[in-house]
Amino acid sequence: MRNPQLNSNGELTHLLTVEGLPRDILTHILDTAESFVPLADREIKKVPLLRGKSVFNLFFENSTRTRTTFEIAAKRLSADVYNLNISASSASKGESLLDTINNLSAMQADLFVVRHASSGAPHLIARHVAPHVHVINAGDGRHAHPTQGLLDMYTIRHYKKDFSQLTVAIVGDILHSRVARSDIHALTTLGVPEVRAIGPLTLLPSGLEQMGVRVFTNMAEGLKGVDVIIMLRLQNERMRGALLPSAQEYFKHYGLTQEKLALAKPDAIVMHPGPMNRGVEIDSSVADGKQAVILNQVTFGIAVRMAVMSIVAGA
Amino acid sequence: MRNPQLNSNGELTHLLTVEGLPRDILTHILDTAESFVPLADREIKKVPLLRGKSVFNLFFENSTRTRTTFEIAAKRLSADVYNLNISASSASKGESLLDTINNLSAMQADLFVVRHASSGAPHLIARHVAPHVHVINAGDGRHAHPTQGLLDMYTIRHYKKDFSQLTVAIVGDILHSRVARSDIHALTTLGVPEVRAIGPLTLLPSGLEQMGVRVFTNMAEGLKGVDVIIMLRLQNERMRGALLPSAQEYFKHYGLTQEKLALAKPDAIVMHPGPMNRGVEIDSSVADGKQAVILNQVTFGIAVRMAVMSIVAGA
Amino acid sequence: MRNPQLNSNGELTHLLTVEGLPRDILTHILDTAESFVPLADREIKKVPLLRGKSVFNLFFENSTRTRTTFEIAAKRLSADVYNLNISASSASKGESLLDTINNLSAMQADLFVVRHASSGAPHLIARHVAPHVHVINAGDGRHAHPTQGLLDMYTIRHYKKDFSQLTVAIVGDILHSRVARSDIHALTTLGVPEVRAIGPLTLLPSGLEQMGVRVFTNMAEGLKGVDVIIMLRLQNERMRGALLPSAQEYFKHYGLTQEKLALAKPDAIVMHPGPMNRGVEIDSSVADGKQAVILNQVTFGIAVRMAVMSIVAGA
Repeated sequence: MRNPQLNSNGELTHLLTVEGLPRDILTHILDTAESFVPLADREIKKVPLLRGKSVFNLFFENSTRTRTTFEIAAKRLSADVYNLNISASSASKGESLLDTINNLSAMQADLFVVRHASSGAPHLIARHVAPHVHVINAGDGRHAHPTQGLLDMYTIRHYKKDFSQLTVAIVGDILHSRVARSDIHALTTLGVPEVRAIGPLTLLPSGLEQMGVRVFTNMAEGLKGVDVIIMLRLQNERMRGALLPSAQEYFKHYGLTQEKLALAKPDAIVMHPGPMNRGVEIDSSVADGKQAVILNQVTFGIAVRMAVMSIVAGA
Repeated sequence: MRNPQLNSNGELTHLLTVEGLPRDILTHILDTAESFVPLADREIKKVPLLRGKSVFNLFFENSTRTRTTFEIAAKRLSADVYNLNISASSASKGESLLDTINNLSAMQADLFVVRHASSGAPHLIARHVAPHVHVINAGDGRHAHPTQGLLDMYTIRHYKKDFSQLTVAIVGDILHSRVARSDIHALTTLGVPEVRAIGPLTLLPSGLEQMGVRVFTNMAEGLKGVDVIIMLRLQNERMRGALLPSAQEYFKHYGLTQEKLALAKPDAIVMHPGPMNRGVEIDSSVADGKQAVILNQVTFGIAVRMAVMSIVAGA
Repeated sequence: MRNPQLNSNGELTHLLTVEGLPRDILTHILDTAESFVPLADREIKKVPLLRGKSVFNLFFENSTRTRTTFEIAAKRLSADVYNLNISASSASKGESLLDTINNLSAMQADLFVVRHASSGAPHLIARHVAPHVHVINAGDGRHAHPTQGLLDMYTIRHYKKDFSQLTVAIVGDILHSRVARSDIHALTTLGVPEVRAIGPLTLLPSGLEQMGVRVFTNMAEGLKGVDVIIMLRLQNERMRGALLPSAQEYFKHYGLTQEKLALAKPDAIVMHPGPMNRGVEIDSSVADGKQAVILNQVTFGIAVRMAVMSIVAGA
């Protein structure tokens, strides 16, 4: 069975998940992103690669921040961008997802950027659209957030150059994190020899070992000697639920402080997908410290999204 | 009394309703739209006809889908587009409609696309604006939805070529449908010899016969030998109200099934303004069948809206 | 201590408040705006001064009208504009204002237009952003609304030419008005010899006299011989509160009628920041009368915002 993300020439035509993407495609995306990074320093930060193309931001789940990064990436590529808040629209009129997509396709969309609370919604859309339409997953349920995974890889490569010698720790609510899933797949594919997952048992999914991940419930042990620390956001609703005792308790055990950071390699970098809960999963001194590359992730994220858009729209 | 949609040279300066527009103006819109259709296949789908012009989408009533079609049409003409959700804005501050319009005009708007729950609001606005400002009605109350009417005409002409030999049936909730009203006026003006309205008595307005329409409450009789079937959306609120027994009952009598479709001419086309209620007014096998041109209507709708915008802004 | 709005060369790099800006900077903004006014009559109303720049409209407090004027100004300068409704976004996820700003800055923003319910929020942001990022205050709490103040000055200069001979009256709810504060600072700086504040005692802040303002509770006395009348909007919530007896009572004493207007100079102009409460602070015959320049204010406002944006982004 063919990978639904690749066309018959093996080129990326949709970006739905990092899982199953070959290493050369990931590397091609990172290389393309690298070519866009210098744009930021130019007087005019735009290239005409998608001029006249229509990019639809279909956010069935609200996320101003992620939507804005895609809007910026699309406009830097000179595309026309349409922001559709679908929950407020046809969905409320009882129209099915596929009828909505068919309608928007008939408006001659070139690219759908899809955020959806249901895992698999972008796959369903990709299976359904005409061949000239491309789909990018901007986060679906707990499943995947591939552009976040790719911008994390870009950030790691930027600071560490070579994936083949690294130890990377992902810390926090692995269970509910689509970012963690995307990162694990990408790190493994790119040849990182040791990926660690650190968190309380209640927030660690089963099956991590089968994905090649070393699991730690003790943060001090897990951070020992790592090159990269990826902190995850702790959703507020988890703290109110039965899974965790309290934010204070969580911070004590799994919050990244200067003391815990000192257990990693001296040149370890600290990443976070944002938005941060300061004092819950990360201490402010670390978030604002010199090892944090959290804002650089955001900047690289624009270039990575430009890369993905220009690659799939060119396929 | 002069037609408020025409300037002193008889050119279209506002599009408020299809009613009262001469046939040559309707034909000019359809011809202009036809010149825009091939754009969709070009690498860059834009023309510079409205470059530097400001198009304001004034949606006093929310409709993401219709708003998006106008936004696409305007951007394909290279206009700058401003989306204003007015219900959330000055209206809540107690400002009158005309003060709001005066303000937006003073921002040097060129074109207002107006959707409003009150019949006649676009007319009021058109009477009030400065001569260089143009108004397009994107749906006002139960009154009119002229661009939908025009895209329906475009679709019929595309598939049937000649209006002068056709029998067209409009099926469903004629009473509450601004689409039906716009279609009836357009079909009559363009010389369609037989227009039929099919629906339950409770959803048929009085006065249809005076508009030259043949009325049927029996769908089998009404569909016999027709060339075009225009299905109307059944608003959910009607089903909850006293006008209809139930959605199931409605579908049994007025839902378009393969069996009922077989009563029309073999090459009859099936249209629907969307969004569809599958299983209420139309069966899925018909909606997705080879006689349905429902998605083509959407595609043609972009070209028709480009035509209307470029014609009025050039007047 | 250096003025936080000026860079080390004394050039305007942020516009946070009119207070403390030297007269030559105010005059430079008005002169630059004057150069943009003729654009409105051109076929293509755009200039490429901000081409490729990213302008973020950060509206923590909703205001469709003000947001639209900035969006128009930015697009006329050929910038890319991003509208962010922040209250619906990260703020609800518990992210701090400065983390939000850091994130958006990392997306390579060039200009933030900030509207916030808290006085001082734009100052906080301006202190915090990287040197290449510029901040424009679009209204913060009761504190300032400098572009409104500047467009008022532009309007006065347009009609009265010379500030040095004028008597200007500001009428209404001075206490809660950021517009009044901005106007008073601008008028004083530009050399207007007599600024008057007229209103009921409950709506007059203390300290007006120290700002060089003459205070009147009797409108007839206050309007005598003035060249310019700036009416303020009476917020609906004031009328419901304990500060005022009723809208009718307010109109009787402080509503601008033809009779009261006759007390001013015969060529006095009437201004209002909008949206107007007709019949509360202003009579319709005055609002629509020949001395009113209320809609001209709106038009000049686009040019003034273009001026401010192009000046700070060029600094």
